[in-house]
Amino acid sequence: MKILLPDTMPLDPTLPEGWEAVVVDARAEIPAAHHDAAALVVWGSSRRHLASAAVDLPQLRLVQSLAAGVEGILAAGFADDVVVATGAGLHSRTVSEHALAVLLALVRRLPEAREAQERHEWSDELGGLQPLHPEGRLTTLLGARVLIWGFGSIGQTLAPMLQGLGAQVRGAARSAGTRAGVEVIAEADVPAALPGTDVLVNILPATERTAGIVGREVLAALPDHAILVNVGRGATVDQVALREALEAGTLGAAGLDVTEPEPLPSGDPLWDAPRLLITPHGAGGRPVGADERIAANLRALVEGGEVLHPAAR
Amino acid sequence: MKILLPDTMPLDPTLPEGWEAVVVDARAEIPAAHHDAAALVVWGSSRRHLASAAVDLPQLRLVQSLAAGVEGILAAGFADDVVVATGAGLHSRTVSEHALAVLLALVRRLPEAREAQERHEWSDELGGLQPLHPEGRLTTLLGARVLIWGFGSIGQTLAPMLQGLGAQVRGAARSAGTRAGVEVIAEADVPAALPGTDVLVNILPATERTAGIVGREVLAALPDHAILVNVGRGATVDQVALREALEAGTLGAAGLDVTEPEPLPSGDPLWDAPRLLITPHGAGGRPVGADERIAANLRALVEGGEVLHPAAR
Ligand SMILES: NC(=O)c1ccc[n+]([C@@H]2O[C@H](COP(=O)([O-])OP(=O)(O)OC[C@H]3O[C@@H](n4cnc5c(N)ncnc54)[C@H](OP(=O)(O)O)[C@@H]3O)[C@@H](O)[C@H]2O)c1
Ligand SMILES: NC(=O)c1ccc[n+]([C@@H]2O[C@H](COP(=O)([O-])OP(=O)(O)OC[C@H]3O[C@@H](n4cnc5c(N)ncnc54)[C@H](OP(=O)(O)O)[C@@H]3O)[C@@H](O)[C@H]2O)c1
Repeated sequence: MKILLPDTMPLDPTLPEGWEAVVVDARAEIPAAHHDAAALVVWGSSRRHLASAAVDLPQLRLVQSLAAGVEGILAAGFADDVVVATGAGLHSRTVSEHALAVLLALVRRLPEAREAQERHEWSDELGGLQPLHPEGRLTTLLGARVLIWGFGSIGQTLAPMLQGLGAQVRGAARSAGTRAGVEVIAEADVPAALPGTDVLVNILPATERTAGIVGREVLAALPDHAILVNVGRGATVDQVALREALEAGTLGAAGLDVTEPEPLPSGDPLWDAPRLLITPHGAGGRPVGADERIAANLRALVEGGEVLHPAAR
Repeated sequence: MKILLPDTMPLDPTLPEGWEAVVVDARAEIPAAHHDAAALVVWGSSRRHLASAAVDLPQLRLVQSLAAGVEGILAAGFADDVVVATGAGLHSRTVSEHALAVLLALVRRLPEAREAQERHEWSDELGGLQPLHPEGRLTTLLGARVLIWGFGSIGQTLAPMLQGLGAQVRGAARSAGTRAGVEVIAEADVPAALPGTDVLVNILPATERTAGIVGREVLAALPDHAILVNVGRGATVDQVALREALEAGTLGAAGLDVTEPEPLPSGDPLWDAPRLLITPHGAGGRPVGADERIAANLRALVEGGEVLHPAAR
């Protein structure tokens, strides 16, 4: 049996007996010599590649994505009996690290320090003796009340990192409860929680429901010193409302790894909003544990076990 | 009995029976009305204040500093039977948070993202699909080999934060062993450890022995992609050697919260070194748990218990 691996990243999964792996160009059609493949791994693969796979591989049984979202794969028209597995969880550690980096940079005012450095200025305002919790400003995560909106795989990975820094963490998801030891509130209870939130970390997927959900009302309900970080999807934030809140001083600071659209057009006024840090969708983009995930799902396929993270179709 | 508190930060320690607290101007001489004080808390106190305390308070039994270093207090000439207690540990959480913020900013290349943002540029180089461990560059703490040189209170607080992000952490101190569950190597073994170090976090105190200890040889022994963070004391780093290593590309990046001297003179070429982030000694400067420390040491004084962190005199 044959599994096709993309040439977009180095992969070396342990294969079941009798399987061979072949690396193919993820931007091109599947070569005729490999139309006998039974499994396909998808990472940075072109629409053309997916379309070819959907029609040219009659023996195909598993499509393993390394990305969290599989919209492109589902749209390619694979036969109904082909299992499509998402790369859920493979980006949790890297995206959490990035969210923490951006949040800490804003809390510790590193962009301002960098600007003072460019002026060769030792800014007394950013150093020396200072109150732990100055009026109207968040300068440490110690004791900070963090709400992680979208408390799935990434949120649950980020939570203990923040707790380790002394933050009080809550999650928000579609249903309430306790997940990974963290109190999770339901979406309906978010508005009431916002006034008591110092940091809002948005890790929501883009759905019809979440479009622009972090809008004028949410931003107004947060305290003026609050920090917003978005590592989910750009479409979940009303960017005009965000810019206006930053300009009006009713939001402390914000960090965006995702925008709508991407790339953000160079003429967009968002680029120049005060106390805003934009990173160009660089939080994830490098699956961690891909080999193990591929191996596990191939094994499940061969042995008739349960495939990890099958996509709903 | 009377304890004098400085006016430089809000304090409200629980006092033993029969004690009263009085807030005094930490920059001025001790007013005659309070020459009966038995304890003095020191934070941002002037030399004049300390000199006055040393001669004007005949009943003084305890000087509680909230800073880690007590050189100024020891130099003020307090009588031999006055116990001087340091603020060791009170800055561990804030300094660790800052060290992590600076390190993550460099790993996640936030200064470069900020510069691209100023140009309204969505930098493909900083986002999109990318290798987890690119050749010659450190872009994640996952699997990064971190050496914390100076593995005392701050280092032991920082270590689990880094481990939580997937880093492999070792410490270096004056003697080898295992501390707080972390392998600690002796100073003599540092040179051999440097080639296998991706991140060097310097949290050394300024002593005769540590002056310029992070110099040309140490920097040359680190891999070219290595990141240096210094939150200890500026005097421990040879700043000319550091600038040259950054300019030559034999060091990946550096972050300094401390320099020699402070403030760094505006004409110093260090300000403009590439891939260097300077923050103006802002890591600590806000004791955490001061009230509890003061209360515990007053109690020890009254009950004859052991004072926490007495200074060697
Ligand atoms: N910046 C990057 O580089 C990067 C990389 C990877 C992923 N991402 C983004 O991060 C998102 C989350 O990833 P993940 O792996 O953590 O996904 P996940 O495990 O599926 O978690 C998504 C979470 O969002 C919650 N949610 C969805 N709709 C909601 C709503 N209307 N109100 C409240 N909560 C809602 C879900 O709630 P329930 O649990 O109750 O269903 C779940 O907790 C992805 O969708 C992707 O867009 C970004
Ligand atoms: N940036 C800021 O705002 C800020 C704030 C507070 C403190 N600091 C600095 O941070 C330093 C460390 O603070 P701390 O509370 O962690 O102090 P600490 O608990 O006394 O720890 C100091 C550590 O340095 C080690 N050390 C000393 N000389 C050494 C040498 N020659 N070689 C190897 N290791 C050596 C000690 O080793 P042993 O354990 O073997 O003795 C100890 O592990 C302070 O001295 C201060 O200068 C900076």
